[in-house]
Amino acid sequence: MSEVIATYRLFDQKGAFEKKAEGIALGLTIGSWTDLPILEQEQLKHHKGRVLSIRKTGIETAYGQEADIEIAYPAANFSADLPAILVTVFGKLSLDGAVRLIDLSFSEELASLFTGPKFGVEGIRALTGAYNRPLLMSIFKGVIGRDLAYMEEQLKAQIAGGIDIVKDDEILFDNPLTPFEERVKLGRQVIEQSEAKALYAVNLSGRTSELKEKARRGIELGASAYLFNVFAYGLDVLQELAEDPEIHVPIMAHPAVSGAFTSAPHHGFSTELMLGKLVRMAGADFTLFPSPYGSVALERSAALKTAEMALENSGHKQTFPVPSAGIHPGLVPVLYEDFGMDSIINAGGGVHGHPSGATGGGRAFRQAIDAVTAGRTLEQAAVKNEDLRLALDLWGTGK
Amino acid sequence: MSEVIATYRLFDQKGAFEKKAEGIALGLTIGSWTDLPILEQEQLKHHKGRVLSIRKTGIETAYGQEADIEIAYPAANFSADLPAILVTVFGKLSLDGAVRLIDLSFSEELASLFTGPKFGVEGIRALTGAYNRPLLMSIFKGVIGRDLAYMEEQLKAQIAGGIDIVKDDEILFDNPLTPFEERVKLGRQVIEQSEAKALYAVNLSGRTSELKEKARRGIELGASAYLFNVFAYGLDVLQELAEDPEIHVPIMAHPAVSGAFTSAPHHGFSTELMLGKLVRMAGADFTLFPSPYGSVALERSAALKTAEMALENSGHKQTFPVPSAGIHPGLVPVLYEDFGMDSIINAGGGVHGHPSGATGGGRAFRQAIDAVTAGRTLEQAAVKNEDLRLALDLWGTGK
Repeated sequence: MSEVIATYRLFDQKGAFEKKAEGIALGLTIGSWTDLPILEQEQLKHHKGRVLSIRKTGIETAYGQEADIEIAYPAANFSADLPAILVTVFGKLSLDGAVRLIDLSFSEELASLFTGPKFGVEGIRALTGAYNRPLLMSIFKGVIGRDLAYMEEQLKAQIAGGIDIVKDDEILFDNPLTPFEERVKLGRQVIEQSEAKALYAVNLSGRTSELKEKARRGIELGASAYLFNVFAYGLDVLQELAEDPEIHVPIMAHPAVSGAFTSAPHHGFSTELMLGKLVRMAGADFTLFPSPYGSVALERSAALKTAEMALENSGHKQTFPVPSAGIHPGLVPVLYEDFGMDSIINAGGGVHGHPSGATGGGRAFRQAIDAVTAGRTLEQAAVKNEDLRLALDLWGTGK
Repeated sequence: MSEVIATYRLFDQKGAFEKKAEGIALGLTIGSWTDLPILEQEQLKHHKGRVLSIRKTGIETAYGQEADIEIAYPAANFSADLPAILVTVFGKLSLDGAVRLIDLSFSEELASLFTGPKFGVEGIRALTGAYNRPLLMSIFKGVIGRDLAYMEEQLKAQIAGGIDIVKDDEILFDNPLTPFEERVKLGRQVIEQSEAKALYAVNLSGRTSELKEKARRGIELGASAYLFNVFAYGLDVLQELAEDPEIHVPIMAHPAVSGAFTSAPHHGFSTELMLGKLVRMAGADFTLFPSPYGSVALERSAALKTAEMALENSGHKQTFPVPSAGIHPGLVPVLYEDFGMDSIINAGGGVHGHPSGATGGGRAFRQAIDAVTAGRTLEQAAVKNEDLRLALDLWGTGK
């Protein structure tokens, strides 16, 4: 049967999870069961939520004992869109005190109604010509209040450093100094003038109903990728962009605002569900999430699970995991160990703060990537690579 | 200057809030300041975030000392839409451990770019002909897997009980048994056949880009109001529906999923900001939120502040506050005391579970409302009002 299985982390002072789970399974579907006449039970049985499992974790929290429970919701109860699914599995329930939605598992039939990423890992490798290594991404710095000439200089420096993907700052919106269309044209021009096959992810922003048209216009002008603040809009908005055949460039899901519903330990959604599984179903080609190393850090296990859900076998193309924040060249070995080949190394300060500027920063990262994929240490590689040596002198190695 | 002022609740083990606040004000705007040349400072000063106040609350939490800080963000930094504003004030910051966005204050110029509710409290009173009393709302019960005849019977019973507004269950989506258009037609017919000026809020659901067209078609078929799961879509989606001149029926914002980012004490958004202030700016005519009385309960102060923000003086029409869940006729005096005349009393089980059915339940509520607005006690009113007496016998009075 087509269905979605939700895994919740529940808390209860008395540990009465059977009653609580049954209450959820009925409350979020047909409302009541045992007091229904047999005839009505027959009529409603294909709509009834079912408790599949209850597993006490043995952990005692401020909200009581902890247990993970699985409940199956028949697809007959909702339309095949993420808003309907989220309202079904976590609408009212999200308001019921401490409870966390940690996973959703979609039956094959239901999952097949979501098309997922258009490009995914393989498609992005083809676009950038970057194989057999993690990709390298960087971000514009301090662009608010600056003009196009300032951005041009930064973009050139980054591309010259061998960076595969340059992304807009997520807080740069359409503005008179650097309007969307001008940034797109600038990006196209700088990339064409270089010999690189780089992508520039422009922030696709503005009113919801205008995004598709704006994205299409941007592509006509030469946009090669889009950055999208999906959690300020809605997962379904991302999905509709990804489904549009005319929007044939990769889309990068930014985690802005998502901490509001992933960071609290006993409420909201798990990071891996939102930033790993659901953005992939909704069609993100890249997913950015906090790395476990920086000051804005995600717990290591959550970061690893997010990457795992972005890449695991499913009917959809793989979403490129982009662990972000606090990254400098000295962290490349640990990034490679934690996230492997199919990940993107993304840096801001670690590129721009390099003693030789963003170009030197880009080169230092590429030297570090070449070293680790060839099985050499950074120290070995730094002997012949000045940029890498300068980076290691400044930021050190390891975490 | 046009700007938005964000009030955050911050936590710090060492109480170093000055540094933290300054880091946010710069980090979420121009990035750096003191190391900039004077010429660049001049160029960027209109884009710089400013710390306005830091107030230590004296409360010690698991995350350290607590302080409320205010930071002003120039409107020059973002486009005038809620996604851009939320990304600016809480994009990256939401991912930075324990931090809660408790209020946003918009300069008049900025607020005037948002049109707010189309109907509001006055408009809905005019539509329902209900003046000088709280309105009465009820919700369909157990409609998943049921047919139109079942809904018709429920709707007739509710309308006959004197209910002003009947709303769909938020988990009822478009489905073969009770499709959207058929529900709309049913609602129109039942309301026309009654002598009531009631509204039926149909759940407007489906894919984001199809909502406007669906809403317009529904109105052609006689839809009198829409229920909308705004937090499963996005505030801007609500705003675009509310701005559409062809969607000239009231829109009800449902809080489904919002608990994911309002319920944790040290993370996310305050309930009053999301369910009070922002849904109003985005154009909700009604806002539902958990009442402080039921099992799915909101803290009383948060519920009162939510209603306050829905109604307070501003350039926008007032949004009708609808404290929901756990409501029965015996609670009408406390609801009236807490939320006053301009609120809506909303019940599910408290209507349908009445010994005389939904019609008796509706009448019991109306009798209770008549009593409290006339300054009488429920006990006094119950002497001559059989339905109210039965309700009080079953559910008691008070909290």
